[in-house]
Amino acid sequence: MSEQTARNARHQARMQRKKALIDQRIAEAQDEYGLLLVHSGNGKGKSSAAFGMLARTLGHGLRGAVVQFIKGAASTGEEAFFRQFPEQVRYHVMGEGFTWETQDRQRDMAKAAEAWAVARELLSDETLALVVLDELNIALKYGYLALDEVLADIQARPLHQHVVVTGRGAPAELIEAADTVTEMGLVKHAFKAGVKAQRGVEF
Amino acid sequence: MSEQTARNARHQARMQRKKALIDQRIAEAQDEYGLLLVHSGNGKGKSSAAFGMLARTLGHGLRGAVVQFIKGAASTGEEAFFRQFPEQVRYHVMGEGFTWETQDRQRDMAKAAEAWAVARELLSDETLALVVLDELNIALKYGYLALDEVLADIQARPLHQHVVVTGRGAPAELIEAADTVTEMGLVKHAFKAGVKAQRGVEF
Repeated sequence: MSEQTARNARHQARMQRKKALIDQRIAEAQDEYGLLLVHSGNGKGKSSAAFGMLARTLGHGLRGAVVQFIKGAASTGEEAFFRQFPEQVRYHVMGEGFTWETQDRQRDMAKAAEAWAVARELLSDETLALVVLDELNIALKYGYLALDEVLADIQARPLHQHVVVTGRGAPAELIEAADTVTEMGLVKHAFKAGVKAQRGVEF
Repeated sequence: MSEQTARNARHQARMQRKKALIDQRIAEAQDEYGLLLVHSGNGKGKSSAAFGMLARTLGHGLRGAVVQFIKGAASTGEEAFFRQFPEQVRYHVMGEGFTWETQDRQRDMAKAAEAWAVARELLSDETLALVVLDELNIALKYGYLALDEVLADIQARPLHQHVVVTGRGAPAELIEAADTVTEMGLVKHAFKAGVKAQRGVEF
């Protein structure tokens, strides 16, 4: 048996075992309900992954919503893009710019409370398959919102609604409550190496 | 001074320092060129973050492209969604299903070579601001494609084109060549706890 043939045979055996394992896991997974997902960590992709899920949701003909906390004033590419589908996407941007631009805690807290009132309404909308709470973790970290109220509203949502919370520094109670948590870890970042923020990548 | 007033003052001072630091970093970052980004790790969000970047790119009125390696047969929500914009998005899906469904190494390798021929052509298209090479790391890991050729084609791309490579197990040479690398770490996964794969989240 040549080396190539042997490699092919090993590959086939490995893939067969893998398929059997995965088929079994799929068969065992029975529950169907809306998930609470958290994207945290210092790396990139936390918000982008949530917007990718929104695209996926729209691709299934379902509706979604976004509340952007904190990053208020920045008119991002995502916003421009998803606002083109007002029938399918409810899009809310709160606040006025990054928190380190405003330097006014009282105003930030008032903006966060307004944003949460919108979020609460979305979290009770049965027609939404997905609600993205973008950078909510930052608002929680700064104490702009009460964590127990936020968690209660998220947990009271419609059974089949998925929720994605993004932002570094997710509080432990949120991680505890979540179904799926991904930590986006920074391995390497061009920005730190002196490269300008790039349109389409950073904003 | 009340505790609340003191907290507000501390907050303002902290935010001012943060703003000064960030403004300085932005001023220092001068280079402008297309980035090579890698989304790796065992957690979720690797592909979703790439598709979120694609949405962002379209929001800026720019064009993008996708080559999906490996996940051929699965008709995903992203695909359905982004195929609605044929003027702005070139979308290619290669192969026929997950590798553990096919169990035929020779066929997988032929499919990967075909896919790479498409990718190479996209990587020479000046009109594309972003090229997503989805699950390319898997094809590299299984040795379906030659890493040195892949890297050479990526490095020969137009100066302003961004490339995102996704998939677990990114090879060290790719990480070395990348500008930005994010490791999506699995903290918690509903699927493992017996929850079915959910439309809009998993596919």
